[in-house]
Amino acid sequence: MRERLARVMLMRLAEPGDAVMGRLVASCGPEAAVEQVRRGVLDPEFVRWFADARRGRAAGSAEEADARLDRVLAAWTARLEAADPAGDLAEGERAGARLITPGESEWPTQLDDLRDSRPHALWLHGQANLRFACIRSVAVVGSRAATPYGVHVAAEFGAGLSERGYGVVSGGAYGIDGAAHRGALAGDAPTVAVLACGVDVSYPSAHHDLFAVVRTQGLLVSESPLGVRPTRPRFLVRNRLIAALARGTVVIEAAVRSGALNTAGHAVALNRILAAVPGPVTSDASAGCHRLIRQGAAVCVTTPAEAAELVGAIGCDLAPEPRGPVLPRDGLPAEVRRVLEAVPARNGAGPATIAVEAGVDLETVLACLGGLAAAGHVEKVSRGWRLRPERPVAG
Amino acid sequence: MRERLARVMLMRLAEPGDAVMGRLVASCGPEAAVEQVRRGVLDPEFVRWFADARRGRAAGSAEEADARLDRVLAAWTARLEAADPAGDLAEGERAGARLITPGESEWPTQLDDLRDSRPHALWLHGQANLRFACIRSVAVVGSRAATPYGVHVAAEFGAGLSERGYGVVSGGAYGIDGAAHRGALAGDAPTVAVLACGVDVSYPSAHHDLFAVVRTQGLLVSESPLGVRPTRPRFLVRNRLIAALARGTVVIEAAVRSGALNTAGHAVALNRILAAVPGPVTSDASAGCHRLIRQGAAVCVTTPAEAAELVGAIGCDLAPEPRGPVLPRDGLPAEVRRVLEAVPARNGAGPATIAVEAGVDLETVLACLGGLAAAGHVEKVSRGWRLRPERPVAG
Repeated sequence: MRERLARVMLMRLAEPGDAVMGRLVASCGPEAAVEQVRRGVLDPEFVRWFADARRGRAAGSAEEADARLDRVLAAWTARLEAADPAGDLAEGERAGARLITPGESEWPTQLDDLRDSRPHALWLHGQANLRFACIRSVAVVGSRAATPYGVHVAAEFGAGLSERGYGVVSGGAYGIDGAAHRGALAGDAPTVAVLACGVDVSYPSAHHDLFAVVRTQGLLVSESPLGVRPTRPRFLVRNRLIAALARGTVVIEAAVRSGALNTAGHAVALNRILAAVPGPVTSDASAGCHRLIRQGAAVCVTTPAEAAELVGAIGCDLAPEPRGPVLPRDGLPAEVRRVLEAVPARNGAGPATIAVEAGVDLETVLACLGGLAAAGHVEKVSRGWRLRPERPVAG
Repeated sequence: MRERLARVMLMRLAEPGDAVMGRLVASCGPEAAVEQVRRGVLDPEFVRWFADARRGRAAGSAEEADARLDRVLAAWTARLEAADPAGDLAEGERAGARLITPGESEWPTQLDDLRDSRPHALWLHGQANLRFACIRSVAVVGSRAATPYGVHVAAEFGAGLSERGYGVVSGGAYGIDGAAHRGALAGDAPTVAVLACGVDVSYPSAHHDLFAVVRTQGLLVSESPLGVRPTRPRFLVRNRLIAALARGTVVIEAAVRSGALNTAGHAVALNRILAAVPGPVTSDASAGCHRLIRQGAAVCVTTPAEAAELVGAIGCDLAPEPRGPVLPRDGLPAEVRRVLEAVPARNGAGPATIAVEAGVDLETVLACLGGLAAAGHVEKVSRGWRLRPERPVAG
């Protein structure tokens, strides 16, 4: 219980993704970290590590490192007074949310890939189990300013992935995120909205009802304390959680300066699979997706089945190859096809004319025409042979 | 002159792309090849080569090879009677067309890459010089059943490539081909329509006027004799010429069974550059393009500039990277941005509140606010500091 209280405290003291705090907690544990902030004195060994790490990045002298760390500590300390971890836990319970911490059974261990920027704890609100929801999951992300095309495709991907048993992780925002969640709700798998605000804050407020449904069939997740409003940096830092939770990320519509490309960057940095859906080249909304594909950073996917194949186990979840209609003539040997191509459509022609046109000898033409007539490709008319109309058959 | 007559004869005797005839001509020259067909007896050395080549492909016994070659020879012989090379040359002159043969100054030497399926000669009709038109050229191909999106993009690519001095090679068909030619006519570079019929045949007939304009600013090209109608095999065989003439091929809209994918296959086989333009994943017309990109066979291109960069010399014709709007805050140091993000938009907040929100110490906040106010990002109001509205500046 003391560790839980310490972690709730840390959520208040440090901004999400604060890697300095993450390192401090990794080195001495959450309770000792809080205690050091309270005392206003950091462990000398940690101070040395910080200076070494900065020197390793050629980020200045030891004095500058000390000064920098003093300012970081001062910022944490400034938040001590307003923090009330016991109150936060009580408020979370009132709101129907629950807190999970590393090591608990519902904690998704893939978040360990985030190392020093791993969240101290997560607030969850909803029916699903986060760990199970994310074991087989795909992040579907994209622009808030999505086009009708993007919204349509995102809903298709959300539904198609959910139908295939893949949890759909996204950010709960307008546009692609919302459409992906809504699509996923049509399937059986849970959908997970990772928010940049507290799980009790409906942002955007127009998604209040969507979040209510997501809670019944999935989860709202946040590393921010309850009541916290989103800011631009929090959106960006939140994106690493989306990328880390899912096996792979699919970008559907992202302009060249879209937050979705930030999520894509996290996916690559975390060795997750990255895919992008192409769109009209006339649409700026797909320019970021095309750039990812052009750069080879993302695989081009066009259907939920292809996305599932990509993140699925090798040999499982294989997407069907796209195929056109199969025509009856497809099965014919090359020479027979040449004869068939030389048969006129309307008036009819004699075998000798067909032979010259096809570039095949007369004997072959005579042999072929019999078979072609039997198969219904050609028919004999008064002036010779002509084609019978052909229809595609299902392949 | 005798060689020219022999080559015109060969265009009548063998179907375009007939690699057996190509090999015969390569081994003994066009005149001797015609002579052998006339006599009805092939050179024993060539017969041996044919049997060896078939054995190498495990395509049957020596007897089967002989029988096969007899039938090939019979098909050539069957066309002897109707062939009139002197008449063809005279007719070409009347039609305003001209014949070029390998070794002439206008012959594009890149056609040598076709080896045994190199055309015996080409009929040209138009003002441009074929060799110069193709030295710096891109093939733009795609479905006849193009969507309005595909037609728009093809016209943009045709125009954009032509403006950059790239000849645009295509097949003169409905849909993407026609739009690419029309777009190219808007630029200065010549456009080349490689037809599957005689250069005097307007196929499709609705392109009669387009072909007339192409002749004034470019060329109609065909390896078929005058008056010959197109057949399905001739379209496919013609595609190898399109791929071979251009430095690279761009596929714009191709369903999964489109002839454009056949051209794409030739481009790959000929070590030419292959690119494809993505489109809506909801459109079957782009499915072939997406498959080429997914398989890694084609590079994803979205603008004519990117296509030009791809086929251009290394370091030349570089396409601009797509960029979003640049915001004034982009240039700020990370810490200053954190402070800026913590400043409220409307009511104003004091420095201490901003410091806690930003996770930065008070001293830093005070230093940052001064600079941010001077740069016009924030303003002081009665209740503290608040944001000033920001507009993107041109990048």
